[in-house]
Parts: sequence; structure tokens; C-alpha cells
Amino acid sequence: MMYSESLVKLGKVRSEIREIFEYGNKRKAEIGAENVFDFSIGNPSVPAPKIVDDTIKDLVDNFDSVALHGYTSAQGDAHVRQSISDYINGRFGTKLTANHIYMTCGAASSLTIVLNAIMLPGEECIAFTPYFPEYGVFIERTGAKLVAVQSEDKTFQIDMEKFEAAINEKTKAVIINSPNNPSGVVYTKETIEKMCDLLRKKEKEYGHSIFVITDEPYRELVYDDIEVPYIINYYHNTFVCYSYSKALSLPGERIGYIAVSPDMDDEEDAYAAVCGAGRALGYVCASSMYQRVIEKCLDATSDISIYKTNRDLLYNSLTDMGYQCVYPDGAFYLFVKAMCDDSHEFCEKAKEHELLLVPADSFGTPGYIRVSYCVQTKQIEDALPAFKKLAEEYK
Amino acid sequence: MMYSESLVKLGKVRSEIREIFEYGNKRKAEIGAENVFDFSIGNPSVPAPKIVDDTIKDLVDNFDSVALHGYTSAQGDAHVRQSISDYINGRFGTKLTANHIYMTCGAASSLTIVLNAIMLPGEECIAFTPYFPEYGVFIERTGAKLVAVQSEDKTFQIDMEKFEAAINEKTKAVIINSPNNPSGVVYTKETIEKMCDLLRKKEKEYGHSIFVITDEPYRELVYDDIEVPYIINYYHNTFVCYSYSKALSLPGERIGYIAVSPDMDDEEDAYAAVCGAGRALGYVCASSMYQRVIEKCLDATSDISIYKTNRDLLYNSLTDMGYQCVYPDGAFYLFVKAMCDDSHEFCEKAKEHELLLVPADSFGTPGYIRVSYCVQTKQIEDALPAFKKLAEEYK
Repeated sequence: MMYSESLVKLGKVRSEIREIFEYGNKRKAEIGAENVFDFSIGNPSVPAPKIVDDTIKDLVDNFDSVALHGYTSAQGDAHVRQSISDYINGRFGTKLTANHIYMTCGAASSLTIVLNAIMLPGEECIAFTPYFPEYGVFIERTGAKLVAVQSEDKTFQIDMEKFEAAINEKTKAVIINSPNNPSGVVYTKETIEKMCDLLRKKEKEYGHSIFVITDEPYRELVYDDIEVPYIINYYHNTFVCYSYSKALSLPGERIGYIAVSPDMDDEEDAYAAVCGAGRALGYVCASSMYQRVIEKCLDATSDISIYKTNRDLLYNSLTDMGYQCVYPDGAFYLFVKAMCDDSHEFCEKAKEHELLLVPADSFGTPGYIRVSYCVQTKQIEDALPAFKKLAEEYK
Repeated sequence: MMYSESLVKLGKVRSEIREIFEYGNKRKAEIGAENVFDFSIGNPSVPAPKIVDDTIKDLVDNFDSVALHGYTSAQGDAHVRQSISDYINGRFGTKLTANHIYMTCGAASSLTIVLNAIMLPGEECIAFTPYFPEYGVFIERTGAKLVAVQSEDKTFQIDMEKFEAAINEKTKAVIINSPNNPSGVVYTKETIEKMCDLLRKKEKEYGHSIFVITDEPYRELVYDDIEVPYIINYYHNTFVCYSYSKALSLPGERIGYIAVSPDMDDEEDAYAAVCGAGRALGYVCASSMYQRVIEKCLDATSDISIYKTNRDLLYNSLTDMGYQCVYPDGAFYLFVKAMCDDSHEFCEKAKEHELLLVPADSFGTPGYIRVSYCVQTKQIEDALPAFKKLAEEYK
């Protein structure tokens, strides 16, 4: 074999979302952009807050160039890590230090680094449906296996019975993603407490650590004063995988961090394994400039109110039309039940009305579709008649 | 085992260079920075050219924020990749297209992505001494093995007999690094031609592809009109791993690319394997802003003349004092034979004169030390008496 077979395959599979996006571009060229309603992509539609751009220009003008663009230590600049741990402690009452923070190139690298640090071949990592399909790619590359657990109907909270049934002696970790892509669901405090109680019980039963990996790019994107529990306060063996991609509308700049719980088993080894995994995967440091940018923007977010406006408009309109939608407390997706069994067929039918939607089968939830509402509000307003006609076809 | 044992170990081993650097900071606090001569770190000492900072500010002010900071496609922005392939073609007469370029987070990620794309467990990758110690980390993580081949004495060109003896049916790839860290040696056209002839012969003999991975962060740092052969023009199965870290003094920003030779065996699979490896390792895209920055700076470099001044001053002075040095045509390192058998002992002795040098044993060349001359020229001038006293101790 000349190249890694699995990686060639992975490189050739164009993601379904990308296919739809390309189709949308073609269609826009044919009939005009204003007549195509693209709800496929999860790219923030709200610009970065002004403080981000101001900070970039200030650093370029006033920070020593060699230091600004030079290597930081592999785990990230010590001052930046101190600021982040102080910020988290102030907000959540934790006791993190700079030495619990490892700066990364965004959530995907946070996840691959943690997974490589802890997962050994033959072990299992649980994810709850719907889950980001890339989890499977990241887990399999470590030689471990993703075990999907179906969530509760309608609420999409964790189904504790199914969860318990899936845990066995090979279970090494659980990934959660709350607020969730693609359902928008936020796990309640009750869900988190039950999950953590069960894991503590199972740790005792099997006599080894079981880790929670909490994938949190959408933490700041919640509406109506919904509280997102901070997992380090509920469970000792927690890795927080954070990203500024959505909070500050910087997805292309690849900046985030891993926070290792101070209460983790063999905490020093855990942090060392993270550092070692980062090295082995080729991460030298996260962008030195963007580390300093986010340090100045810890309290800032993009204008989240636009997403709330979109959420309310889309949820209310679609449920009025007869669509069954999960009520999303966070993120910028509406998770909608297809009006026929085959979500692909439903999305093809939607295309006839120039609506570009994503079948959610690859998230482990066949029969559902994802509608990204990180778009201009006007696009939603303009698209409502099309959604209505689509619904009428299935009446 | 709770964490990956090898990665915990990797994360705990502080690099020797980092140890020396930390010692230097401590010593500077004790006796004053101007009295400590730190030649340990390979961080560019010349600031990024003005066009880099001007471009950053221009993009922030005039480029749509959502697009500037948003995701590019995983392989990099199509326009940026087109500009880079045009630039390479204009300079080296190659026939690359945008679809031969994959944007990366710098040379380390270029290397891990290529190595994961091609190396399978049990296969071998050859590197020539002295080589960057991280090669071993990257190769071992794929399940393959690094095979070190001693270079020619004094010239540090490839020893073709030793090279041929090291190739066997498991040989999948060869990594070269010219200009070399830490020797500063540039491979001659003759060396490259002989290496490529031998590889073509061995490909026929074993009936499978053997790849050249050319690690080129120092390509632009050459002095006196030295020519660095462009390997794609010499060999079909070539991956170029390029980085702007040293050329534009942006090591902390992590921006570079992989160029896949258009003549590669199963070229489309090769590029797909690169894309797949990037995904599996958690690389989503290289910094979207820095992709656009380097597009505007393809012709620019930092002020390389300062490194030439340093090279000439340091090489001439040290050889006058009786040091045996490899003449460096490129990079910013002087590779010096220790004056006793044990390079660690020699570096400890150097510390007594406040000279911080790096033993090169970890580069596969015991008995040598590395002197980084990416420092202020004044530091070299001030350090010369210390170098002289050190040499006198061994007379």
C-alpha cells in the first residue's frame, strides 16, 4: 500500500455539508444569490467584536515584533494561560492555575490532543447522538472505538439506561457537547449530575479512570439566561476542550485551549500526556499573536443577540407550519424532524424550493435535518414561504 | 495504563535547548543580561518585514471580517493556493496547480501530515545526521521507524555508500533538510542528483515508491548566491514541507504549506492522503488571516543580511581561535566540533564563561555543538573574548 488507505478515503470523501455548500454556490450563480436559501454551513455570520480587530492592530503597532510573532512555549504563553485560568476561576469558582491550561489550534485540535493522550488501542469512547461526525475520525485514529449511545427522544438529554448499558471495562472516556451541534440542546444540571454519579460508580466498579471530554465551542452561545454547568465542578476526571471560534467569530484563526481538571487522577501525568500528544501530532504552539488577542478579549463575545433573533423567528415560524423541532437553548442550529422517513429525500425535496438543509444521518440521527441559522435574519424571513410550501407537500 | 505512556514521557522530557534557555534567564537575572551570551535558541532575531504588519492592518481594516476570520477550505483558501503555486512555478519552472498545495500550521505540521499520509507501521524513514530530533517523535507516532544515516565527515553531504546500505525493502521515505538545522550545510546539485538516481534505482529494485520529504523552513536563509536545488525538479515522488517561520520571522504564527509533486505516483491519492491525514490529526485549516498575509508577502523576507553578517563574524572569529566549524551556507547555526570528546562536558565548561551552547548529540552527531547566531550582532562581538578563553582551556 502506497498511502494510508483509510486516510486516502478520508481525504476523498467530500463532506455532505461541503457538497451542499458547493451546490448552493452553483445555484446562486444560476438564479441569483437572493433566491437561494442556504442553511447548510456552521460559519458564524456575525463579525468578530471590534475589540478583536482593535487588539490585533494595537499588538502589531505596539508589541515587540520578534516577541509577538515568535514561538511561545508549546503549552502556550505563561501570561496568557494565567489570564485564562484566572478568568475561569472568577466565573466558575474553580481552582485552575496556568499549569492546567494548554493552548490549542481550536476545538478539533483540543479533541485530537486529548484523545491521543488518553485513548489506547482497543479502548472505547462513548458519544451521545446527535454527535459531530468528526469524533469518529479522531477516535479511530488512536486505535480506539467510538460507541454511540442514543439520546432521549425529543429532549435529546442523556438516556441514562442506554448510557449505563453501553459502559463496560473498555470504556475510557465520554465526549459531551453542550450546547450541542446539531440539536442546540443544553444539558441540564440534573443530566450532568446523573451522568457524573454513574461514571463515579463505574470507575469504582471497573477500578480505573473514566474521563469526561467536554467539547465546548458553543458555551457562550446560549439564550434566555440558560446556564451551562461547568463540568470541572461536577466531575474530577474532566478535560474541557474550548474554542474561541464561535464566541469571537474566529473559526478560521484556530485558537482555543484544553483545561485539565485540578482534581484529575495523576493530574501531572495527564497534563504531560497532553503536552506529549501535542508534540507528536505536530502542534508547536497555538498562534502567538492570537494567544495575545484572546487574552484581551476574555470577556467579549460577538453580538449573540442576532442568533437569538434568528432562533426565535425560525423556531416559532417552523413549529407554526407543523414542523417538529427540538427547542434549541444554544448554538445556532435548529434540529428538525424530516416529514418523511428518509432525510435525504426530504432535503432533495427542499432543494426544489431552493432551501439548502443538511440531513443529520451522519450525526447518528437518521430522520432529522439540521438548519443552520447563523445567517442574515433577512434570509430567514425570505425563506419562510419556501418552508411553508415544503411542509404543504407533506400534508 | 491511564494515559499514553510514551506521550506522558514525551511531555515530561523538557528539551535540552529549553533547559539551557531557562538557565540563561536565571543567569541573566543574577549577573545582568549583557553578561550572558545565549546562543541556544533558533528563534529569528530579525523582525518580520514591514509588509507583514502592514498587510495585517490592511486586512483587518478592509477585508470583510466574517470572511477574513472564517473557515477556509481544509486544504487552504483556493486563491491563496493558486498564488503560491504560481509563485513556485515562476521561480523554479515547475508545473504546480492550486491542487498540489495544502496549507499547514508550519513545518512541524507539514511533516506530521505527510508522515501520517505515507508511513505505515513497520516501514522505515531515513534521515541523515545531523537531523532535527523531533523527526523521530513524528515518525514513531505513525508506527514506523527512523533510520539514521551518518553524513560525510566535515562536508556533511550525504554519504552515498552508507545511504545505499541503509535502504531495504521497508524503506518508504527519506527526509532531507537543506539548508540544515543544525549544520547550516546546503546540499549541492551533485548530492541531490546522486540521491535521486539511487532512489530511482531502489524503487525499481523493490518495486514500490520511495518518497523524498524535503523539510525547507530555511530555504530563503542562504548567503553568497548559494543555490538550493528545488527537489520537485529532480525527483517525482517529492513532498515539499515549507514554512514561513524563518523566512518572514513568523515562527509563532504557524503558517506554511505542503507541495505535492505533480509527477508523484498516484498523485491524486497522495493529495487525498494528505487531506485525510490533516483531518485525522485535528487540523481544520491554517490560520485564515495568515494565509492571506503570506499571499501578499510571497516575494518578501526578513532582513537576511543580518544573519550573513553574524555568520561571517562568528565563523571567521571562531576558526581563527582554533575551533573546527562546518562552513554554513545557510540557516542561522554554526556547527562546531567540541574540543573534547564529550560535548555536554564542553558545554558545561562554556557556561563557566557565560556562553550558552547546545550539545548536538540529540541531532545524531555526538561530539558537536550548535551555536545559534540568530542574535544581535553585538552579542557575538561581546562574546568573542569568552569563546577565546574557552578555546585556551583546551590547548
